[in-house]
Amino acid sequence: MKATIYDVAREAGVSIATVSKVINGKGKISEERRREIIEIMDRLHYQPSVIASALTGKHTYTFGLLIPDISNPFFAEVARAVEDRAHQLGYSVIICSTDNKDDRVERYIGLLKQKSVDGIIMGTGIERVDMAAELSGSMPVVAIGREWSSVPVHTVVADDYQGGRAAASHLLGLGHRRCAVLSESMTIISSRERVQGYRQALEEAGIPLHNDHIRICKFSIEDGRRNTALLLADENRPTALFCCNDLLAVGALQAAREAGVRVPEQLSIVSFDNTILAAVTDPPLTSVAQPMEQLGAMAVNLLVRELEEKPSDKQRIVLQTELIVRESTAGWRS
Amino acid sequence: MKATIYDVAREAGVSIATVSKVINGKGKISEERRREIIEIMDRLHYQPSVIASALTGKHTYTFGLLIPDISNPFFAEVARAVEDRAHQLGYSVIICSTDNKDDRVERYIGLLKQKSVDGIIMGTGIERVDMAAELSGSMPVVAIGREWSSVPVHTVVADDYQGGRAAASHLLGLGHRRCAVLSESMTIISSRERVQGYRQALEEAGIPLHNDHIRICKFSIEDGRRNTALLLADENRPTALFCCNDLLAVGALQAAREAGVRVPEQLSIVSFDNTILAAVTDPPLTSVAQPMEQLGAMAVNLLVRELEEKPSDKQRIVLQTELIVRESTAGWRS
Repeated sequence: MKATIYDVAREAGVSIATVSKVINGKGKISEERRREIIEIMDRLHYQPSVIASALTGKHTYTFGLLIPDISNPFFAEVARAVEDRAHQLGYSVIICSTDNKDDRVERYIGLLKQKSVDGIIMGTGIERVDMAAELSGSMPVVAIGREWSSVPVHTVVADDYQGGRAAASHLLGLGHRRCAVLSESMTIISSRERVQGYRQALEEAGIPLHNDHIRICKFSIEDGRRNTALLLADENRPTALFCCNDLLAVGALQAAREAGVRVPEQLSIVSFDNTILAAVTDPPLTSVAQPMEQLGAMAVNLLVRELEEKPSDKQRIVLQTELIVRESTAGWRS
Repeated sequence: MKATIYDVAREAGVSIATVSKVINGKGKISEERRREIIEIMDRLHYQPSVIASALTGKHTYTFGLLIPDISNPFFAEVARAVEDRAHQLGYSVIICSTDNKDDRVERYIGLLKQKSVDGIIMGTGIERVDMAAELSGSMPVVAIGREWSSVPVHTVVADDYQGGRAAASHLLGLGHRRCAVLSESMTIISSRERVQGYRQALEEAGIPLHNDHIRICKFSIEDGRRNTALLLADENRPTALFCCNDLLAVGALQAAREAGVRVPEQLSIVSFDNTILAAVTDPPLTSVAQPMEQLGAMAVNLLVRELEEKPSDKQRIVLQTELIVRESTAGWRS
């Protein structure tokens, strides 16, 4: 026999009004109690019609996750964290890979609006900032790993600047003096911050970061390889390389191998992100770990809080990074 | 000004009844024309209310994708293909990572039913086959990379048996005679088929596959490493190893390195899947490529066909695999 709202209320020892609040995401009810009632609904296989509830202007318990590419290990790991936390809180996630293209972003946003999603987590780049502004005016939005300084939305990012500093400090401590960097486009705030932190720490040690030691790459293994090959061809080539993500570092390893440059003996490499890739290369990569699980969970928390409490302030949460030392970095004696 | 259904009809040169058919996914209309009208709706930013349409028992243009883990590169790449094809056809995808646990599968299915999804693509293992049977009785289901022989659903799989044969033929051609295999649980049909193809090709060459050269692993790098270490500790150790997925092969490479066994000179390794991992290890892995893009796209095609045409027959599509030779395999002289 199908469970009814009365069965849930009886089992939970609450009124049906309370169960209804949980179903509709309205009214005051503690997080703990809400979770408890959801678990009981679950156990009894009680299924309120979300569609019917959505039509009366209530929640659909669904939100969209816009990222550049779900097949990229970094975003896949973040997506898993988003999905898990959302699922815990009773929400589902529609996945949207944008390839960082504005027209795909626009199309997906249209689609998500049609589906009356409750909100959107934005982890993708947008060139037209007006789109982000318009979107955040029309529904709850949380930015993850991305920022639009002119658009006030909730934001969760890793401390990119400190991460860049940590990479430089590690290399300086090992004795490196000729340090280069592979970055993604400087129009992305997180890239800019990583390079800025790296540069700053080098400069404080009296080592300027030369312009020809900064190479701007597309987000691909191939571009990391191509740009590293160019750096290694220079007679005054760097002894250390900071790659602003794992894909670029994989390309750097390949270029070093092709040029007969041994890692870490002749070239130290530090990467950023610490996805599964960092652990499987040879040598495994020293990498600045982003807290992917926390990033995803915090973004969901912010979105759900926005939906349920409609706070007037926008939060910006900055999470710590952590340098994971593996075998791609070693001491240098000039 | 907001576009209306009349604007779309005028632009497409069709009646509003035809546009309505496209919106509601009902009535006869060619795939090509349907796509054309969707594009016009898109261009004009016309947004029919999917929620209102869903309440009258029509499509939600959303389906669920159940996979073991979106953060696993193989499933992330398949998910991207599913998402892309779904998006082309006007559908969205809710992502569900099950960790191959029946209770998570059950909970997700309940959630997806609540949301009135149009169908489900199942890429996850289920121990309780009755769940798959019940599900396929209640909504359109397509199995991807998985099969339940007792449950008739549309199925898209890679040719696992031929893939296993290809791995063996490659190793035999290189002169290997002591060949082992790391597999996932034999309760998974695809694992069984891979090992069976491998074994058969070896036996046809007069080389039996010894039981102690078959090691059953969990789906993790760590378990691949542990089991390879055991194989390598044997004095009559294998000279070649077939790993039924890339994660196990990464573990095998690590174990070989730790044991001081050079790959490919002292141990050849063939993996299966050909995800991004196969290309980034050192040496890069010879791998049996699954056609991940095609798998995803075909699964969506089958699901949409089921929704729109309700065919009475269930299709089983088997896609070719392809051996990609990289540097983890080499000739052997005894």
